[in-house]
Amino acid sequence: MILTSKSNPLIRETISLKEKKGRRETGLFLVEGTKMAAECRRSALEIERVILSESYAGEEYGEAVRVSDELFRVLSDEKTPQGILCRVRIPKRRLALPTGCCLLLDGVSDPGNMGAIIRTANAAGYSQLYLADCTDPYSPKSVRASMSGIFFTELYIASREEIFSALSGVPIYAADMHGENIFGFSPSGKFALAIGNEANGISEEVFRRAERTLRIPMQSEQESLNAAVAAGIAMYALRSDQFRDKR
Amino acid sequence: MILTSKSNPLIRETISLKEKKGRRETGLFLVEGTKMAAECRRSALEIERVILSESYAGEEYGEAVRVSDELFRVLSDEKTPQGILCRVRIPKRRLALPTGCCLLLDGVSDPGNMGAIIRTANAAGYSQLYLADCTDPYSPKSVRASMSGIFFTELYIASREEIFSALSGVPIYAADMHGENIFGFSPSGKFALAIGNEANGISEEVFRRAERTLRIPMQSEQESLNAAVAAGIAMYALRSDQFRDKR
Repeated sequence: MILTSKSNPLIRETISLKEKKGRRETGLFLVEGTKMAAECRRSALEIERVILSESYAGEEYGEAVRVSDELFRVLSDEKTPQGILCRVRIPKRRLALPTGCCLLLDGVSDPGNMGAIIRTANAAGYSQLYLADCTDPYSPKSVRASMSGIFFTELYIASREEIFSALSGVPIYAADMHGENIFGFSPSGKFALAIGNEANGISEEVFRRAERTLRIPMQSEQESLNAAVAAGIAMYALRSDQFRDKR
Repeated sequence: MILTSKSNPLIRETISLKEKKGRRETGLFLVEGTKMAAECRRSALEIERVILSESYAGEEYGEAVRVSDELFRVLSDEKTPQGILCRVRIPKRRLALPTGCCLLLDGVSDPGNMGAIIRTANAAGYSQLYLADCTDPYSPKSVRASMSGIFFTELYIASREEIFSALSGVPIYAADMHGENIFGFSPSGKFALAIGNEANGISEEVFRRAERTLRIPMQSEQESLNAAVAAGIAMYALRSDQFRDKR
């Protein structure tokens, strides 16, 4: 059977997952494209349902539903849809202590930055991400920019107070343009790197709780970096000793 | 006098600057917004003409032309235009040897990445950027993402062969996922860091000419980084010794 109608309940619900409200109500988010779907399958996340376009001829998925190409375009968030969309369960995690270095995202508001930060965190070995007052990491744009990073990192969305409790005993190093030179500091043991809002930086609360503030030194006339770029430079700078010793 | 018509020659020409063809024919590009305009004024670039909306009430510029708010929205590339747009002369530079470390952008195709790389290069002290086969750095999207970095860096757009000649005697280090660990290498003296295309990486030509290939080590399941993030991490990694010694 090929679904063609937008008023089908499954389709209506799937469309709702593009918005935060729909994701909150269902506990599901969308993963689109062949590569992302394959990576999601390799991960521990649960694919609740797969939606394929009528003309999709790639790998078969068990619980798939076929929809007309026209209807698929309505569901898709891509300019050139590949014909595969997964409904994936948002993992329910209880706030836990980080296992190693981790990120505290403090008001990151741009979905593209959010995804790029998750992608870099996964590459740089920051396995836990604690999110306070951020854009929803499960939005289609963030998921796409994370390039599967969202499947392999642990995200915790909570209030700053809850996060501070979870990070009890773990020093917070906040990225801040007035801090000390990040290249002059080598952390030992676990830590949480805090990244602030694109326009306003670190919040008062995190600032007060931070053990250190660290600055990426800048030359010349440039007074700031793109938030995702800055986060990447800071993540690698704080682990450069470990990376230097790896092969 | 307040211009209201799209068919006015100045307005027609200004609209053409949104596209590469118009920029090539006139040698001008667009800089929008109060902050960007102020930064541009501080730079060595020549503002050929300023276009202000009827209701713009910010700083006055000498050679300004006023247009209706409606017409300004046609010229603007922003969702919420601030009412100031500068037509700026694209600097004509003769290919020259870099004065210190520099970037070789080898097929960077996304305007947002291009701008973010220029922004980071300016902050990290990579003053010369050599561009082969890249997206136009003077597009509105790239200029905006560069956050004034485009005013304070030297850009050279040329063929790979011309760039190789200009870089004569300067070692090229190419970012490549199969290279050696970038955190295990400290360059001495001038060098050119080469950043490749988002999907395909470094070109054959640059690859052959490179003295070394350098990799950003990655953990876990992530097989790549966002191009602008990777460029930022590499730029800072190669200068971390200098940055460490700075204050």
